[in-house]
Amino acid sequence: MSAYRNDALINAADEVVIRQHLALVALGKRPADRILRVGRLLDVNGRNWHADQEVVISGRRIAWVGPAGAYRGSAPKRIEEPGLSAVPGFGEVHKHIESSHLTPEWEAALTLPRGTTWTCEASHEFSNVNGARNLEFWLTARLAGSPTKIFPLPGSAVPPTAYEWGGGHFGYEEQRSFLEAQLMTAGLDEVMDWPAVWNPDNPSHERLWGMIRATFEARGVVEGHAAGMRDIADINAFAAAGMASDHEAWTAEEVQDKLRRGLFMELRPHSLKEIIAGLLAAGQQDWSQFALCTDDRSCSDTMKLGATDHNVRLAVEAGLTPEIAIQMVTINPARHMRLTPWVGSIAPGRFADIVLLDDVGSISVAKVWADGRQVSEGTTYLEEVPTITWPEWATRTVNIERDLTAADFAIPAAAGSTTMCAAVLRPFHWADEFITMELPVADGEVQRAPDRNVTKFAIVDRFSGEGRTSRMFWLGTGPRTPESALACSMGHDKHNIWVVGSSDAAMAKAVNALRQTQGGWALVREGELVATVRYEVGGLMTCRPAAELDQEMEAMYREGEKIEWMYEPTFSPRWWPGFPERLAFATLTCAPWRWVLVAPSPLAPDGLVNVATGETHPVVWPSAD
Amino acid sequence: MSAYRNDALINAADEVVIRQHLALVALGKRPADRILRVGRLLDVNGRNWHADQEVVISGRRIAWVGPAGAYRGSAPKRIEEPGLSAVPGFGEVHKHIESSHLTPEWEAALTLPRGTTWTCEASHEFSNVNGARNLEFWLTARLAGSPTKIFPLPGSAVPPTAYEWGGGHFGYEEQRSFLEAQLMTAGLDEVMDWPAVWNPDNPSHERLWGMIRATFEARGVVEGHAAGMRDIADINAFAAAGMASDHEAWTAEEVQDKLRRGLFMELRPHSLKEIIAGLLAAGQQDWSQFALCTDDRSCSDTMKLGATDHNVRLAVEAGLTPEIAIQMVTINPARHMRLTPWVGSIAPGRFADIVLLDDVGSISVAKVWADGRQVSEGTTYLEEVPTITWPEWATRTVNIERDLTAADFAIPAAAGSTTMCAAVLRPFHWADEFITMELPVADGEVQRAPDRNVTKFAIVDRFSGEGRTSRMFWLGTGPRTPESALACSMGHDKHNIWVVGSSDAAMAKAVNALRQTQGGWALVREGELVATVRYEVGGLMTCRPAAELDQEMEAMYREGEKIEWMYEPTFSPRWWPGFPERLAFATLTCAPWRWVLVAPSPLAPDGLVNVATGETHPVVWPSAD
Repeated sequence: MSAYRNDALINAADEVVIRQHLALVALGKRPADRILRVGRLLDVNGRNWHADQEVVISGRRIAWVGPAGAYRGSAPKRIEEPGLSAVPGFGEVHKHIESSHLTPEWEAALTLPRGTTWTCEASHEFSNVNGARNLEFWLTARLAGSPTKIFPLPGSAVPPTAYEWGGGHFGYEEQRSFLEAQLMTAGLDEVMDWPAVWNPDNPSHERLWGMIRATFEARGVVEGHAAGMRDIADINAFAAAGMASDHEAWTAEEVQDKLRRGLFMELRPHSLKEIIAGLLAAGQQDWSQFALCTDDRSCSDTMKLGATDHNVRLAVEAGLTPEIAIQMVTINPARHMRLTPWVGSIAPGRFADIVLLDDVGSISVAKVWADGRQVSEGTTYLEEVPTITWPEWATRTVNIERDLTAADFAIPAAAGSTTMCAAVLRPFHWADEFITMELPVADGEVQRAPDRNVTKFAIVDRFSGEGRTSRMFWLGTGPRTPESALACSMGHDKHNIWVVGSSDAAMAKAVNALRQTQGGWALVREGELVATVRYEVGGLMTCRPAAELDQEMEAMYREGEKIEWMYEPTFSPRWWPGFPERLAFATLTCAPWRWVLVAPSPLAPDGLVNVATGETHPVVWPSAD
Repeated sequence: MSAYRNDALINAADEVVIRQHLALVALGKRPADRILRVGRLLDVNGRNWHADQEVVISGRRIAWVGPAGAYRGSAPKRIEEPGLSAVPGFGEVHKHIESSHLTPEWEAALTLPRGTTWTCEASHEFSNVNGARNLEFWLTARLAGSPTKIFPLPGSAVPPTAYEWGGGHFGYEEQRSFLEAQLMTAGLDEVMDWPAVWNPDNPSHERLWGMIRATFEARGVVEGHAAGMRDIADINAFAAAGMASDHEAWTAEEVQDKLRRGLFMELRPHSLKEIIAGLLAAGQQDWSQFALCTDDRSCSDTMKLGATDHNVRLAVEAGLTPEIAIQMVTINPARHMRLTPWVGSIAPGRFADIVLLDDVGSISVAKVWADGRQVSEGTTYLEEVPTITWPEWATRTVNIERDLTAADFAIPAAAGSTTMCAAVLRPFHWADEFITMELPVADGEVQRAPDRNVTKFAIVDRFSGEGRTSRMFWLGTGPRTPESALACSMGHDKHNIWVVGSSDAAMAKAVNALRQTQGGWALVREGELVATVRYEVGGLMTCRPAAELDQEMEAMYREGEKIEWMYEPTFSPRWWPGFPERLAFATLTCAPWRWVLVAPSPLAPDGLVNVATGETHPVVWPSAD
């Protein structure tokens, strides 16, 4: 469309030009580009089906929608899909594209055929790696031709807590500039450091409220994250603080308690069936303040399960009508995010993003249109994925200027001691206190105790260049197999390198492998590097097709199966035995975490800190005897 | 609350202070001010009732809501209302407070006891009188202590068309500054000059799109006004142009056509029962994209019928459940207007605005709380109405520096003619063509033809000081009684003075009376000024109690009954015989109007202009014979 200038992104000046043009196309005073005729069409504004409809498209947008044959204007191209049911392109109200481990253009190629045409990007993974390039990173793929609309919401967790540093630091000024620079910036994502929100003494209090202030100023949405928050005093306080949503509820009762305090409820796959069934049993009829969201899903899982379509299927399986479930990924999230002029319904002015279903009840996606053109057939993406040469600010992000050695992971003992007390954590250990154990000393160093399921866990900073390392003992995870270690540059949400290993030398070897690949996974078994997975963009994503990454992951899993992995249950129901892939989330520092290990920082020199109180503690100390 | 600075209005910096405080109150770490315990409470987010609830209030806001007895903190004052049902304060998504003819503090005193605690002010009446003072005017009452939250939406119709002028001129810069100056500015109100929106050649095109652009830039809402728009090409074009809503639909079918194009539907009392019943009959189940709105209602009608509560009652009578109807004046409009952090639900962080019903089915309002305190008992307002001395910019707005005479209203005939052709309009004459009649000439002037229901209508500018006057013949309105005239300084939407009369001298006398009162109504009967109604603020409102104004109106109606009024039916179903009060809306110039009479302007020197095309025409011309 010659009338369009910058129509991939959204800015007010071009929006005027686009809409002036669309109005004339709707009136039949200018020709359209193409007309899509469908068997029926779901209006999600009123939740009504309309039979034999046409969608008139100009450029990337919808100009007109109505009964077939009624459009007054003309278009050079007509496409007929009489057997298919059209519903709006699916949207994600809260997703970390980084968790697919694909760069946005490749993630789009994977999720578009599954119906996802727009995503509110919960932008605190890459932002913690390179905060200054946040917007630039998220808009690059679209500017290069990717049909997925990414609406970045800068994450509040940059850094996640005051005890973390490096890569990005967002406060009032940064958030203000993101909201000013781009109308696609929808708000502030998942305020998750609850102790910093309510507690004026918390060192992140002012930074966080600066971001909230900037978001209010720009009429943006302040998204919440109330994990493990079940106490109604906390829930009330959370809502009073201005949080507009939560995506962390696990039960129907928790949802009820949050919904009625005005939190828009974003349900995730792992709990949505139980929640929806529970609410239906309790008589819930109004679902307008609900959305479904993916949050984190690897490309491998998306290949197996689906993208947003999978979430919708789960909601239907739980008992919702397909139409209500579809509203929960279209109009509801669009309205909540104040994006209705652009996405969320098949209506004039919106992007021409349409999911064509061959079976509505099973949310069976036959074809997807995005930006006014067909982009998929079945699960096959029909477009060429744009070739993006990601610059060094994206690809050189494991900044460690030396090889690590076993000494980096040693934990010295007090002189002359034979045992030492150790502060021990489990993955997802959300108790107020850490665990204390007495561990043996040998060669002047405190030792692992594999017989008691205790091994060593470390965080290696990848931002300063110095590879500053903190280390402690962890319970119930990591290899029991000798001289083995697993390291990864994805460690939520600060994304330093974490490494768990049965020997210090193996840990060093695994981390050094990540220096070479610039991120991803490294698995060392019995002294040998047996697998790497490459996340060369931000240390979080790879710029390759999903299938290629999936194969690399599968190869690592196969090598991982040859290792004996420790396990203990803990607070999270999502912590399973076997290859400990989920350790990447065990490094979180938001609520409900208390004691965590972070890279050495001014407020936590040894890395062990209670993020709820700011208290620090040595990782080992002399036994009391 | 000492923690609060400017907590009457909303600004991001103070919002931070307020919410930090509320979170601590919710947690019980700071005392609350009072606790209201109610028999049951409606959560409109999920549409569920909760029995025996407490609302914990701090300052003007809600800090906590939940089961009675569960709040962890303390408050010095407790109020028990076990017999009443609490629902959120009602909100108006589209209302012209000016149409009550009361200044905002007096309008609040009238509507608060009827449940209305917040109003999106469709600000183009006063703005057309004094545009520069728009925000200042609307925020004055609240800053003086009025509990009603007024969210101004600067009107796009300032001026209504390019053929009108004076009082205010809003474009890109003005709208940008309104949105920047105040977070309470929610968007752009009712874009109603549809020919100017779609037609690039219309002289208002650029001004209007400048306002739309500024609204998009600030993430505000662009409200529409699609009166008489039934053609689906127009409806599609209207939505494509970025309009987010319409409040002008008259039938269920029209609503269906607009709703599915993504327009949020705001239903008005005169048609909502028919619309709702029709939609229910058609199977409509989802009402989340609907609100109820008052638009225009005089204080006299509010005293008789009610305010927002009346609208809700009508919706219930039409067949909606009370809970859904209440959502249509609470969460639905708040969400549409992006005001959910502040109004629309009884939830933490929101203003403590609560309607206490003693009967839910009949929406019987027993007491109303606003800003955290009880403000009414039955229909009695309990607060002191703040005394506001409105400044001269508000009270000296009938700017005519001379007395008008009969000569101002004369329509000269061509020399030697005995008859002349005249362009004639009826009130609400929405046809493409004006009516043409042959009228007699006497004393060199074209004459009225009362035997054919034709009298004279004029517009007198009240902004230039010169009293520039346009005049023509109108059909089917005005006094048949000799030497009589009715004049009013409220003439939508430009609010010049309109006057209709059976003699030119009577017309002059009526207008001169308005010079003295600085606005309102003036009725001249058989040469005598028999009634005036004073609208001394902006020529639109009075700074007095509703009852006082009502009595003045009643006195005028009684005098009006002694006059014989012409009548003819026309396009509007709301145009009735008798005292032609509704002429104040017959001066509108938006769609679906075509030919209108405006004050003389550069583009329409005689005042007669087709606002859809820009075409002008003489009001009389020589007969063809």
